[in-house]
Amino acid sequence: MCRWLAYTGTPIKLEELLYKPRHSLIDQSMHARLGVETTNGDGFGVGWYGPDGSPEPALFRGVGPAWSDGNLREIARCTSSRLFLAHIRASTGTAVQQTNCHPFRHRNWLWVHNGAIAGFDLLKRDLVLAVDPELFPHMAGSTDSEVMFYLALSLGLAASPVVAVERMVGFVESVAAAHEVPAPMQMTVATTDGERVWCFRYASKGQSRSLFFSTAISALQALHPGNEVLLGLSDETRLVVSEPLGDLEGAWQPMPESSYGVIQKGDDELGRFHPIVP
Amino acid sequence: MCRWLAYTGTPIKLEELLYKPRHSLIDQSMHARLGVETTNGDGFGVGWYGPDGSPEPALFRGVGPAWSDGNLREIARCTSSRLFLAHIRASTGTAVQQTNCHPFRHRNWLWVHNGAIAGFDLLKRDLVLAVDPELFPHMAGSTDSEVMFYLALSLGLAASPVVAVERMVGFVESVAAAHEVPAPMQMTVATTDGERVWCFRYASKGQSRSLFFSTAISALQALHPGNEVLLGLSDETRLVVSEPLGDLEGAWQPMPESSYGVIQKGDDELGRFHPIVP
Amino acid sequence: MCRWLAYTGTPIKLEELLYKPRHSLIDQSMHARLGVETTNGDGFGVGWYGPDGSPEPALFRGVGPAWSDGNLREIARCTSSRLFLAHIRASTGTAVQQTNCHPFRHRNWLWVHNGAIAGFDLLKRDLVLAVDPELFPHMAGSTDSEVMFYLALSLGLAASPVVAVERMVGFVESVAAAHEVPAPMQMTVATTDGERVWCFRYASKGQSRSLFFSTAISALQALHPGNEVLLGLSDETRLVVSEPLGDLEGAWQPMPESSYGVIQKGDDELGRFHPIVP
Amino acid sequence: MCRWLAYTGTPIKLEELLYKPRHSLIDQSMHARLGVETTNGDGFGVGWYGPDGSPEPALFRGVGPAWSDGNLREIARCTSSRLFLAHIRASTGTAVQQTNCHPFRHRNWLWVHNGAIAGFDLLKRDLVLAVDPELFPHMAGSTDSEVMFYLALSLGLAASPVVAVERMVGFVESVAAAHEVPAPMQMTVATTDGERVWCFRYASKGQSRSLFFSTAISALQALHPGNEVLLGLSDETRLVVSEPLGDLEGAWQPMPESSYGVIQKGDDELGRFHPIVP
Repeated sequence: MCRWLAYTGTPIKLEELLYKPRHSLIDQSMHARLGVETTNGDGFGVGWYGPDGSPEPALFRGVGPAWSDGNLREIARCTSSRLFLAHIRASTGTAVQQTNCHPFRHRNWLWVHNGAIAGFDLLKRDLVLAVDPELFPHMAGSTDSEVMFYLALSLGLAASPVVAVERMVGFVESVAAAHEVPAPMQMTVATTDGERVWCFRYASKGQSRSLFFSTAISALQALHPGNEVLLGLSDETRLVVSEPLGDLEGAWQPMPESSYGVIQKGDDELGRFHPIVP
Repeated sequence: MCRWLAYTGTPIKLEELLYKPRHSLIDQSMHARLGVETTNGDGFGVGWYGPDGSPEPALFRGVGPAWSDGNLREIARCTSSRLFLAHIRASTGTAVQQTNCHPFRHRNWLWVHNGAIAGFDLLKRDLVLAVDPELFPHMAGSTDSEVMFYLALSLGLAASPVVAVERMVGFVESVAAAHEVPAPMQMTVATTDGERVWCFRYASKGQSRSLFFSTAISALQALHPGNEVLLGLSDETRLVVSEPLGDLEGAWQPMPESSYGVIQKGDDELGRFHPIVP
Repeated sequence: MCRWLAYTGTPIKLEELLYKPRHSLIDQSMHARLGVETTNGDGFGVGWYGPDGSPEPALFRGVGPAWSDGNLREIARCTSSRLFLAHIRASTGTAVQQTNCHPFRHRNWLWVHNGAIAGFDLLKRDLVLAVDPELFPHMAGSTDSEVMFYLALSLGLAASPVVAVERMVGFVESVAAAHEVPAPMQMTVATTDGERVWCFRYASKGQSRSLFFSTAISALQALHPGNEVLLGLSDETRLVVSEPLGDLEGAWQPMPESSYGVIQKGDDELGRFHPIVP
Repeated sequence: MCRWLAYTGTPIKLEELLYKPRHSLIDQSMHARLGVETTNGDGFGVGWYGPDGSPEPALFRGVGPAWSDGNLREIARCTSSRLFLAHIRASTGTAVQQTNCHPFRHRNWLWVHNGAIAGFDLLKRDLVLAVDPELFPHMAGSTDSEVMFYLALSLGLAASPVVAVERMVGFVESVAAAHEVPAPMQMTVATTDGERVWCFRYASKGQSRSLFFSTAISALQALHPGNEVLLGLSDETRLVVSEPLGDLEGAWQPMPESSYGVIQKGDDELGRFHPIVP
């Protein structure tokens, strides 16, 4: 189990979400409430798009627990971003090393994942064989999460993100079926190209990991007219999280089972997620 | 809060106590039950006396969580010892670094501590000034635990361990009083010279951290005649732990508040702990 | 031996100095030319003042070799600053841990050091006793470099930096004399309050570590009219380094033995350094 | 470039070879003489067979430089072994992480490598596809060295080590040829099953990395009758190293280009190495 968050909107300092909320992501690294495990101490990472317009996001990833990492605290204090993904890891067996920390990055894309592919050891060879040979050498770690990212990239993530992830999941499920591994996929995922953010919640047998998105800021501002943090945020600001960062009433909506969301300029989208069998 | 264990008796592999029990020390690194915090992920250490008769124990200490440390698992699998101390750390504020990991070692002595000195920042200067100038440069870290060790060494640990620790605590309490810090001391401690083990449980205001010692092995063998692990252990074998390693009935006795124990050849001792004001 | 650099002037990306020059600081971490040791692999750090006008600089410090640190590369790529200090460490015996990595920071001040105090183990107790008791608990590591910083702060660094460092060195030399440690001080130091940068080169017996400052940019631009990097830099831009970053002719001036420099708006200063005996 | 050593013979403490010789392996981590690079600071490892007869060797691997690793020093001081491999790493591009540190282990086998496969990124997919699917999930890192080990295991290492390595090299060279990568293989390798040690020196275009084996102990004892360390060693004792550990005259023989050696009870073997094209 891991925890992640995706933020897009008015540029804010990373610490506003990583440290300051009462149940911030860093607090969740030691005291998660909604997950299978309460501790997410097997590394962390944050990827953000900077003010300079460079398409490639910056990455900061560490192998220790987020709660005691002094560098993360410094980076979070001095870095503002209009779009960032952050992740805290609880390993499901693979090594605790930087190349296994999320977000994973390829060019302008970032990817974070919470969940697991059941029987990954058994399926891994067939899965990596389906990765585009040009992308193959870019896989640097050993996690199912990274393989999922590179499969999605191989299946057209840049051109059509929702379909690519649906094809990725369908492919994993078909490989699992061939190996007689039932219900292999358990995931919440966020991915972004630096402009839009796509979020996914899905599990082969339902009952997928929790995922929440923030209510429209304008609605929140109306509900909580005195809240200064809310006042500074544009209408386009949106946050998606594994578990709520605090107890502000009306702030969080659960994302439905087997669904995807697209956060973008103008209206966001929420749709039903259907794995596409190859 | 931290967790520790002290073992002395029939030589056994470290893994028998660090990994194999149902609620082993490594399990406690992620899921402690009796402490203020459930997570002890800020480093770990083990110190053991080897079969070669060298008076200086070996130390293995790491800064990551014990639960994911592959080297600790290897060392525990291949190392047997008749006397060892192990510790998992939950920092109360000082840096997560190897020099702050327990056990601390000086010559043939080891020291582990669970607890804290309240107001340590305020008291630290006065405390370290009282350390023997010859010992002063050996302090390598920044914890209250290490300062306690070097104070005890300065106050005669090698000659008279119980009195030295009583003087150390009395001194800390008197320095705290001078700074108007009430009830500064909260501790369970184990220390050993490689032959005997001294354990302490004390808090300035009572309600000190939990501490348990194992019942006499012969009594346990009588209670559980079929238990093979117990059969292999000598009568002299004894274990002291922050919290029980499992649920074997009759196996654990709580150490009384404000008490000390001495584990040694022949009869062990249990006595009342009285801080000695300087 | 360590290597450091101090930059102030036109805001530039950290990578321009940490990575891009032919003999960049990161290159020096593996292949220093002018030092006692060629390898500076015992940690690194960079402290920078951000564009947001916060008086407290940001710090990023790591315990591994700089040459393989992926996070440092990311930070250097995405961070611009008008004033930063960077340091790569070769331990002279103290632990390799983040609290021993330079720059050291106190409020708006940063400090980097190359060199050592001879006999530091013997002198340490007397030295730390002279640190202002209010500052005492802020010392988090175990190096001579950090003690020098806190002594200088205690002796008036904020009010009168040159005098404070002269008093610090004089004090260290007097303590050393009392312990019969000859010629204790070997140092190059840079310190800054976020506006000005003070640099020092001194050794008790002369023959101090190398230190160079960059020639006036206008002079360099005249010498190398086609150099685009130089064209973008303001006249106020200045760099001080343990060893030259490249072979651009005329770019580097050795700092004299027993001297200090002040880099500031308007004319810089260069003066003779005289330890002040207490 | 990396450095390694393989020892078999009279049980000795690891520190006798890792630390005590004038040009010990740990000294080589900072000051190698014969390699392309003088610094081997990208991790280290040692694998040893214990006195308890367990077929699986113990592993201790770290990601920092060997020269500053306190745990390695402790392990080396308290561990004796009759057969061990040790390695210090200089990465040729892959991540500095424990799963990339040598020795690699599979069941009772260990493997260390110095060198590189040219164009590994281009060849990697074809190479890992040739790994036995049962072994595939055991590959945990991202190095060419580990892939070479798993290819050799897939090609019969346990049954016929020399032929398996010859087939591995032939296979790599054929894959490289298909990708138009010339002269891909550069290697010295040691591998062991806990009884015998096989060493290999080979490069596709000759000029392979240096490798030396120790002269027969009896010959050395005759040459240096007063040397106490030599006196304690049995006739079967043998050491193979990337570069000599010291300057004892007559102690080291260069291993010929394109050769292999087998160290075993009774007479050792030295033979010519011929890649076997599949």
